[in-house]
Amino acid sequence: MNVLIVFAHPEAHSLNGSLKDFSVQQLKNAGHQVQVSDLYAMNWKAQLDAADTQAPLVGEYFHASLDSRFAYEHQQQAADITAEQEKLRWADAVIFQFPLWWFSMPAIMKGWFDRVYACGFAYGVGEHNESRWGERYGEGNLAGKRAMLVVTTGGWESHYSPRGINGPIDDLLFPIQHGMLFYPGFSVLPPVVLYQVQKAADARFASWCDTLATRLDTLATCEPIAFRRQNGGDYVIPALTLREDIAPGQSGFGVHQKR
Amino acid sequence: MNVLIVFAHPEAHSLNGSLKDFSVQQLKNAGHQVQVSDLYAMNWKAQLDAADTQAPLVGEYFHASLDSRFAYEHQQQAADITAEQEKLRWADAVIFQFPLWWFSMPAIMKGWFDRVYACGFAYGVGEHNESRWGERYGEGNLAGKRAMLVVTTGGWESHYSPRGINGPIDDLLFPIQHGMLFYPGFSVLPPVVLYQVQKAADARFASWCDTLATRLDTLATCEPIAFRRQNGGDYVIPALTLREDIAPGQSGFGVHQKR
Repeated sequence: MNVLIVFAHPEAHSLNGSLKDFSVQQLKNAGHQVQVSDLYAMNWKAQLDAADTQAPLVGEYFHASLDSRFAYEHQQQAADITAEQEKLRWADAVIFQFPLWWFSMPAIMKGWFDRVYACGFAYGVGEHNESRWGERYGEGNLAGKRAMLVVTTGGWESHYSPRGINGPIDDLLFPIQHGMLFYPGFSVLPPVVLYQVQKAADARFASWCDTLATRLDTLATCEPIAFRRQNGGDYVIPALTLREDIAPGQSGFGVHQKR
Repeated sequence: MNVLIVFAHPEAHSLNGSLKDFSVQQLKNAGHQVQVSDLYAMNWKAQLDAADTQAPLVGEYFHASLDSRFAYEHQQQAADITAEQEKLRWADAVIFQFPLWWFSMPAIMKGWFDRVYACGFAYGVGEHNESRWGERYGEGNLAGKRAMLVVTTGGWESHYSPRGINGPIDDLLFPIQHGMLFYPGFSVLPPVVLYQVQKAADARFASWCDTLATRLDTLATCEPIAFRRQNGGDYVIPALTLREDIAPGQSGFGVHQKR
């Protein structure tokens, strides 16, 4: 397979840097082609703004989605955005690796999504009518590709457990896994989460690599999270609420996953 | 009151820009002192990295929390970080206004939290022992201050309803409201969320301003969200799981709020 690793950590010698290097080697040893977008090393521009289009503005003022769509459709995006989109087209699987900062990804990676996910590429795709509400949540330009998060936390596993104070890790990752990955079409694999990584990191490194290796070795075969497809019949269109007869009386992130 | 508005939108002439201007005027008219951190206008640096400290590195390599703590404690932080911390100390209330991009805040605002929330200032505060696990989730350096989100979305309100496909808006905002605001001590007010803002924006602008004005007028008096304090007796320390006799059998973000 062709595997892209999108990586966000400011220090190459960190645990995250070492885990990323291990992943590259493990994937290459298994015969995969690997590219890495090391966002800090690339000095990735995080903020979406008018410099992201080389075309004249569509309207009087910069408009994030209108100007993004125009630039995308007319091959006038900033070169760094086009390059990342090309990597996504090339990839069969994409791994997003980052330390959990403030219960989400580092700003530099959020800026990768904000900018690379152009209108017409990752959203605003497909027709909106009575039976389909665009191509998203299971359909779209990234359909057929796999995505997986590799996340490290300083906090304890119990703090991220179903009744832990930080909130359950699956719910904290839902806006990313469902909202950023499933949305443009990715099949989303269960995440690799390594907890409390500042404790005894040297002693535990080999065990973390084992965990990671197991998941990398099954990147092509592992069963994705069973998020419900938007246009598969489970949702009322255009309200996009779950049909009343499915998971009746329940609500929250969990209902959007088949159990 | 002293009110700080932290604002993230790339275009001053946008709806978000107009709403921000309205808020400033409304607050001033009511006699409040107002400062605005307009992150795009300030060309705010989004990525946390070794340039955030002016001190020599604590270890051989850059370490986000160790070097952040050292720089904070020795007055050697980058000047833009210090300036924002000073604004937070000055403020009685802080409003964070942004468009919801990929179910979270724009990268430039995430980078405000990543960098301004230094170790020793917003996390890593207080002692950890058998009855207290640091000062956080209701305690900390920002305790006594109020915070409120003002968020715009392109999507419909039903898409963010309890069974809407995007997930309930309260759950999408939990990592921000609970994880970034309640964590360092803020009392978090219910958010102002304006939906589907790309539809008939001119015709609806006055109504949005009315909604906003009502909330700004009650900034000092409105009841905060009743998140549970970490050290208030509801959690088992150090596992930090909710006590078994509270909301028995329930899990998810909702259990961390008193009903």
